[in-house]
Amino acid sequence: MDWGTDLWDQYDGIDKHTQSGLDLVDRYVKFVKERTEIEQNYAKQLRNLSKKYLKRGSKEEQECGFTNHQSFQDILNELNDYAGQRELIAEHMMTGICVELTKYLQDLKQERKTYLADAKKAQQNLEISFKQLENTKRRFAKEWGEAEKATQQAEKIENDTNAIKADVEKVKQHAHVKTHTAEECRNDYAAQLQKYNKEQNTFYYTEIPQLFNKLQDMDERRIRSLAEGYSQFADIEKKVLPIITKCLDGISMAGRNTNGKQDSMRFIEQHKSGFERPAEVDFEDYSQGIKPASSDANLNQPKIRTKLWPFSHKKTKVCTLHTTSHTTLH
Amino acid sequence: MDWGTDLWDQYDGIDKHTQSGLDLVDRYVKFVKERTEIEQNYAKQLRNLSKKYLKRGSKEEQECGFTNHQSFQDILNELNDYAGQRELIAEHMMTGICVELTKYLQDLKQERKTYLADAKKAQQNLEISFKQLENTKRRFAKEWGEAEKATQQAEKIENDTNAIKADVEKVKQHAHVKTHTAEECRNDYAAQLQKYNKEQNTFYYTEIPQLFNKLQDMDERRIRSLAEGYSQFADIEKKVLPIITKCLDGISMAGRNTNGKQDSMRFIEQHKSGFERPAEVDFEDYSQGIKPASSDANLNQPKIRTKLWPFSHKKTKVCTLHTTSHTTLH
Repeated sequence: MDWGTDLWDQYDGIDKHTQSGLDLVDRYVKFVKERTEIEQNYAKQLRNLSKKYLKRGSKEEQECGFTNHQSFQDILNELNDYAGQRELIAEHMMTGICVELTKYLQDLKQERKTYLADAKKAQQNLEISFKQLENTKRRFAKEWGEAEKATQQAEKIENDTNAIKADVEKVKQHAHVKTHTAEECRNDYAAQLQKYNKEQNTFYYTEIPQLFNKLQDMDERRIRSLAEGYSQFADIEKKVLPIITKCLDGISMAGRNTNGKQDSMRFIEQHKSGFERPAEVDFEDYSQGIKPASSDANLNQPKIRTKLWPFSHKKTKVCTLHTTSHTTLH
Repeated sequence: MDWGTDLWDQYDGIDKHTQSGLDLVDRYVKFVKERTEIEQNYAKQLRNLSKKYLKRGSKEEQECGFTNHQSFQDILNELNDYAGQRELIAEHMMTGICVELTKYLQDLKQERKTYLADAKKAQQNLEISFKQLENTKRRFAKEWGEAEKATQQAEKIENDTNAIKADVEKVKQHAHVKTHTAEECRNDYAAQLQKYNKEQNTFYYTEIPQLFNKLQDMDERRIRSLAEGYSQFADIEKKVLPIITKCLDGISMAGRNTNGKQDSMRFIEQHKSGFERPAEVDFEDYSQGIKPASSDANLNQPKIRTKLWPFSHKKTKVCTLHTTSHTTLH
């Protein structure tokens, strides 16, 4: 079974079928192009989101290395890598599918046009040859008819006893010439018929089968490349899935690395003043000869003590001070 | 190590630290919300893309079931399922992370406000009590000074031989009263001091440690929930990865199911007319007594034959005809 043998009389069908095949490739390329645009846009939005919140993260807290702040930063970085993978998908679809198939499509279009044109040309030649056959045949029929008439006239005049000998010769001569011409036309017709049948045979058993089989082969090649393009649509994304999974693992890790206990302890290290809590206020017994001074001076010491909290021991720049606070306060 | 013991004098630091902790949760919720919007939009675009090309696929070719057309339709359907999974990610992030954490955040804000307010109140009470202590102490100092003066005057007048007995009694009486009052102030001061030291002790060793430890516990709970939200950000997507992989496998399958040979054979089945190719045209020998008729009539038969292709055997509706074509032509 092949187009050349089984569809020898389906030129129009093959024309239509191969065209719709190329249209499908064209439609698929457009489809993938639109997918890559969606993917590009998606990646861009994820990148901007990650950038936006990376900036926002308060500098101080990052330096302080609290796990619950650090982990958010880690997640934002992973999301940025994630976006990079989506961009990769878009790029590979564009180069691996769209560019490839578009190039290939041009060649196929050209190839198809050539085959169909060759078939049309061969058909026109056959039709011209057939018209010539009709003409030679018509001429043979006409000449033979006239030759027969002339022969009958010759026979008639020969049997006419009153005929003049010279006239008889003239008519016989005429009939002879006519018959001769008719025989020549008969030979022309026979030759043209042979020529036509040879051409018709070549047309139906060689030219058309070859051209239609080339079109079938072309269409099957088209489908192979299209199938390749179909598979790539999935394979390209499958290829990046492991890295995408790595990004997701990184995010899970950031979740596990977030440790509340650790952060409260770190906060203590950074803010501990090292001061003792105020001792009891002493009794000042003026009756035992202590001189009552100005109450201000007198009450000065306990006043400082009780005012220890919450107004003193402020740490303005926590992180930078936090190491020194150890050395100075222990 | 805990905030209550080690950060007893860091009210402002704890205030600032716990606030920035809640701000981080708030920022994370906003971040996830924006991610879900991106995801929703991405899914929507993929859905529309798939719908757009599903519609476009020529009805006829789908019915004809050419693998290379059918596979494209399969891919579009898989892409639609794929989009559904992305939507699922967006929904689960919204409900599982944003809604949960936002609810939780409100409770934490309230809880924090309460603890900080209680600490401030306790501190104000202590300061009031300290002012009372200062007052009793000042009064004691003053009264004791006056009592001493009165006592000295009494001693002076006693040793004065010219003094009138009545005056001596009066001055001694006055000194006695003053000393008595001073002793009462001394007792008030002692009592107030005891009261204050008790309150100060409760403040520094009970109230503040308890409140600051509650704040530490609250902050650690906040971090645990935030860490949970971090992990979910990855887990929600991990959960749909197997189904997304199924979609990709479906697309690869569509690629493998695309078979060019099969499609050309199917095309033959649908378009084969079953007609034989034209036989050779016969020689019509009018010289053997065949009557030459009107050339039209005469040339009628071969004319049809050679005109077989490409004008006849048209199949208008391929698919519906294709079964009958078998029955009628074989």
